Amino acid sequence: MSHIPHDDYRPVVDLSKSPSALLRPISLDKVVLSDKFWEPKIRVNREVTIPSQLEHLEKTDRINNFRRASGKIEAEFVGIFFNDSDVYKWAEAAAYSLITHPDKVLEEKLDEIIQEIWDAQQTDGYINTYFMFEREKDRFSNLKDMHEMYCAGHLIQAAVAHHRATGRKNFLDIAFHLAECLHHKFGPEKEVGACGHQVAEMALVELYRETGLIRFLELAVCMMNARGRKPGLLGGDEYHQDHAPFLETTEVVGHAVRQLYYTTGATDILAETGDAGYRYALEQLWDNFTQKRMYITGGAGARYEGEAFGKDYELPNDRAYTETCAAIASVMWNWRMLSVTGESKYADLMETTLYNAVAPGFSLDGKQYFYENPLADRGNHRRSEWFGCACCPPNVARTLASLPGLFYSTDDASNLYVHLYGSNEAQIVLPEGSVMLKQTSDFPWDGKIVIKVSECHGKVGSLKLRIPWWANPKKTKLTIKNSGSISPNDVIVSEKGYVAVPIEEGAVVTLTLPMEIEMDESHPHVLNNRGRAALRRGAILYCIEQEDNPDADVWDICLPAGISLEAKWKPELLGGVMVLQGEAAALDSLHWEDALYAPFRAAKESSYYPAYLTAIPYFAWANRDPGPMQVWIPVIG
Amino acid sequence: MSHIPHDDYRPVVDLSKSPSALLRPISLDKVVLSDKFWEPKIRVNREVTIPSQLEHLEKTDRINNFRRASGKIEAEFVGIFFNDSDVYKWAEAAAYSLITHPDKVLEEKLDEIIQEIWDAQQTDGYINTYFMFEREKDRFSNLKDMHEMYCAGHLIQAAVAHHRATGRKNFLDIAFHLAECLHHKFGPEKEVGACGHQVAEMALVELYRETGLIRFLELAVCMMNARGRKPGLLGGDEYHQDHAPFLETTEVVGHAVRQLYYTTGATDILAETGDAGYRYALEQLWDNFTQKRMYITGGAGARYEGEAFGKDYELPNDRAYTETCAAIASVMWNWRMLSVTGESKYADLMETTLYNAVAPGFSLDGKQYFYENPLADRGNHRRSEWFGCACCPPNVARTLASLPGLFYSTDDASNLYVHLYGSNEAQIVLPEGSVMLKQTSDFPWDGKIVIKVSECHGKVGSLKLRIPWWANPKKTKLTIKNSGSISPNDVIVSEKGYVAVPIEEGAVVTLTLPMEIEMDESHPHVLNNRGRAALRRGAILYCIEQEDNPDADVWDICLPAGISLEAKWKPELLGGVMVLQGEAAALDSLHWEDALYAPFRAAKESSYYPAYLTAIPYFAWANRDPGPMQVWIPVIG
Repeated sequence: MSHIPHDDYRPVVDLSKSPSALLRPISLDKVVLSDKFWEPKIRVNREVTIPSQLEHLEKTDRINNFRRASGKIEAEFVGIFFNDSDVYKWAEAAAYSLITHPDKVLEEKLDEIIQEIWDAQQTDGYINTYFMFEREKDRFSNLKDMHEMYCAGHLIQAAVAHHRATGRKNFLDIAFHLAECLHHKFGPEKEVGACGHQVAEMALVELYRETGLIRFLELAVCMMNARGRKPGLLGGDEYHQDHAPFLETTEVVGHAVRQLYYTTGATDILAETGDAGYRYALEQLWDNFTQKRMYITGGAGARYEGEAFGKDYELPNDRAYTETCAAIASVMWNWRMLSVTGESKYADLMETTLYNAVAPGFSLDGKQYFYENPLADRGNHRRSEWFGCACCPPNVARTLASLPGLFYSTDDASNLYVHLYGSNEAQIVLPEGSVMLKQTSDFPWDGKIVIKVSECHGKVGSLKLRIPWWANPKKTKLTIKNSGSISPNDVIVSEKGYVAVPIEEGAVVTLTLPMEIEMDESHPHVLNNRGRAALRRGAILYCIEQEDNPDADVWDICLPAGISLEAKWKPELLGGVMVLQGEAAALDSLHWEDALYAPFRAAKESSYYPAYLTAIPYFAWANRDPGPMQVWIPVIG
Repeated sequence: MSHIPHDDYRPVVDLSKSPSALLRPISLDKVVLSDKFWEPKIRVNREVTIPSQLEHLEKTDRINNFRRASGKIEAEFVGIFFNDSDVYKWAEAAAYSLITHPDKVLEEKLDEIIQEIWDAQQTDGYINTYFMFEREKDRFSNLKDMHEMYCAGHLIQAAVAHHRATGRKNFLDIAFHLAECLHHKFGPEKEVGACGHQVAEMALVELYRETGLIRFLELAVCMMNARGRKPGLLGGDEYHQDHAPFLETTEVVGHAVRQLYYTTGATDILAETGDAGYRYALEQLWDNFTQKRMYITGGAGARYEGEAFGKDYELPNDRAYTETCAAIASVMWNWRMLSVTGESKYADLMETTLYNAVAPGFSLDGKQYFYENPLADRGNHRRSEWFGCACCPPNVARTLASLPGLFYSTDDASNLYVHLYGSNEAQIVLPEGSVMLKQTSDFPWDGKIVIKVSECHGKVGSLKLRIPWWANPKKTKLTIKNSGSISPNDVIVSEKGYVAVPIEEGAVVTLTLPMEIEMDESHPHVLNNRGRAALRRGAILYCIEQEDNPDADVWDICLPAGISLEAKWKPELLGGVMVLQGEAAALDSLHWEDALYAPFRAAKESSYYPAYLTAIPYFAWANRDPGPMQVWIPVIG
């Protein structure tokens, strides 16, 4: 393992040499956020979330399970059989955090955990603290249900992140031996096998990238090929995405997190292989997801039963499952699709999902998490400090810790892509040059984005600024100081959704995105949203929560069709948010009393009373006293 | 057992001596249906369904499981551990059928089955073909999950029905010994125990009524009291209704069939004991069910996960679970509540549920069944010939076979209640008299009901005719020939929802219920029904199915607020149904193409095209080529 190089390049996903990726990730440590939205959340993640999660891992015996496996303590295995994965995901979060914020204490704690893992690893490389001692004989005997390769995948992801963070190989060695063990059993020409819960696929591709050992990429392909055979290795059902070979699938089905980790892994393979079949299938699946089975939040997974995607247009609101992990998986997938294609639609969805499906997943104080994310509620659905199945909390932590790495990409023609907006300073290495820039913006609250190029060295291409899907190009303004001014009419949006401007030292590029309050509707076959609108301003989706709306039950509030709404900045509210306010109406539902059904009364015959409406960003709901909430509001008139 | 009397009285539930029941059921054989709605369905049930289900029971080894248990064949137990219950429910259906239609061949087949059961019963009375041989040691070791008392309950119900049908005690003896076995283990002062799946409670009360042995009633009470203790005997959760003692429950929760069998058993106990706590709890639960958690069909159970009730107002349409068995359980419960209270609201709900939630559960040809009953579908949800968990098919069979018994009741003051309408002839025994009557009606298609009293003997009270909830009393007409005519203004609806007219020989009572086409709406907090209406005519709920609506996708069809609809009799359609027709409109959804979300367009800005609408009764859907269907139709204008 001593041949593995390590340098200053610390990408979140290392697509820097992937033959079929068009965009190259930047080094995570080279972007220093100072924005009002993500920086405080990432700080809370670092200062509160990551330390408190370590306490949960200890308290719930997740780390003791490793001590038990290595013989240090005598105890029964505690918890769910895949609990190791939570430790690994936490370690991955800690590793990313060390990249952006070196921290001796955290690094030592992480080293202690790595030591526990090392001590628990078997001589053949196998490690899973559940399958020890009396259960050793059952290893790999139930791939469908027992999540051994899922745990392995998370270990590998954490180890790769740790190697990038520290340059040290203590964790990567564990991952290498574990991957060798898997390769020995399930590699080419060996036993056909894949895990009931995907994630190992993408992890193995990253391990290939980190080690240069192509057998790990091959193993990932073997796992992809193991699904959808007759009779199904994993039950042959949609739940496990085992109903058809990957290349033949056109619809996102079954367990949503598994489906989206699956497509993420497939995209990693596509980046390395350029396989046209993979590309076609991934585009089909992305279309089905975004055109038929995705919440307006970007959230994925309509059904509680099976934590699964529903049928086309099946998107219930009060019983939306929309697991936080599934939103995170979608971000991971879209980041890779963006890198492979250079198309802004993937960055658009990443943006939507981060703000409206990932951010709702954790509380403002960084201590509580949603597993499910309904779009309507009576005040009963609240975040929890932890879960028996605690996949979401450390998934949130690793996502936040790695998020600055998603702001920019470069390409082999020395262009610099800006995907996400918000104040930060970045030092970008290009193939034959480098750029230092400072982005200043109150995004997502304000649409003005100022990018100042402070230094330029060597060969530099264009600055490519994403024009978000929600920004009307006709109302989008771009000016470049030091290069004369480009009039709005001159703004050329490339077919991939980015506008290109030349990079030169001292240039100040000002992009002004129109921040308009919009009312969205759903395709009419989303039966439960008929006649309802959701409020949005730029990238931020809104909801109405009871606490801000004393005039009426928010489930009675309606939007008059021509409602005039105003955006107001509330610095003290929910950590600082822009609210939307206006004169709305509420249905007089009191006459219903205890009736459930009654003769139909047309909207115009129904009685409404004035209700002043205040909408808050959906991500911030359920951070105060419990009360009704909803996203999709009936429109009257 | 030889002391058990048997006479000509063959009620479906024997409330004839229940101290706290106000109404007394009539003998099932004394009502001979000749109506156009139920009579053909009951005939198909007798001629097609019951014989074909016996074939399924044989083919799926459900009967072989008994032969295995008695040592006649050597084999593994086949199927689900509670499969015995399907055999018992079929036997109950066969017994009821024998009451109305004696059939030597069926009686012999039933006797063969009873013999198999008899042979499989253990010397201590225990019988469950799963817990035999190597699993004998596990008997009663997992009351929460293993359904032993559930199977016992169904055996007892079948045996009681068989005793009433034939007067023979071969089946009842088995039930008696099994109940003794249960009483020995779980009776007063013994082990605290109840089954994860209720049904034994109501069965034991019926066995008490059939045998006069009060210990079976006491055992039922013990089972009721075993729930909701801390820590929960059955997991302590809502799914098993083990979260709180029955008397403290106010909401229908958890598994819907279990909840409703639970309340049914509780009502049986109330009928015997008059316990005020039971009465209060049952009224609370009924209010919560009907005011917050019931589909407009009468169906119960909103959620696939846990086959369960949802929260208040949680009533999704395309993912409605609404198990056929839950609707049947509701009919059973309402029949008992009606008998205990004499209040028509229970008969009203029984009527609604029979037509709109039980009848959709089986195909017109009597060979296929719905387990779940969605209120909107794209054409994918179809009835099946059988299920691995085949609770619904024999439940349908026993309900249809016993249905004539629900048409009438008597009371101790010699009144005669008419609960259900449709042509039939009935011979009613009163405490000190008797009445023969002939009901002539095309109900539910026509509102005219003619009841001719052909014979009257002894003391007779009033004829009490139910005025359904949907009939406007001001438009309801009643005339009595031979007694002069009562003008509409004279019709007095008693506070219990029945209108009383004197009974005299030769009298011809004509009740004319207004059959108006109505549009219903849901409480506004049923979020997915906002702005939508359901069509109803009298007791019959309608839906629109693609086959009848070539102008537009039925998911695009809207009801103009002032739509004029006409009812037309279609004798050739779906076995003869009244359809509703009129000029409606359809939303032009084609411009959506592949978009899932788009800027909101007010209804008046949307584009509609004319679409002629034909609505069919909901119970008849999915009997032709698959296609979209929906009950709740958006209203525009």
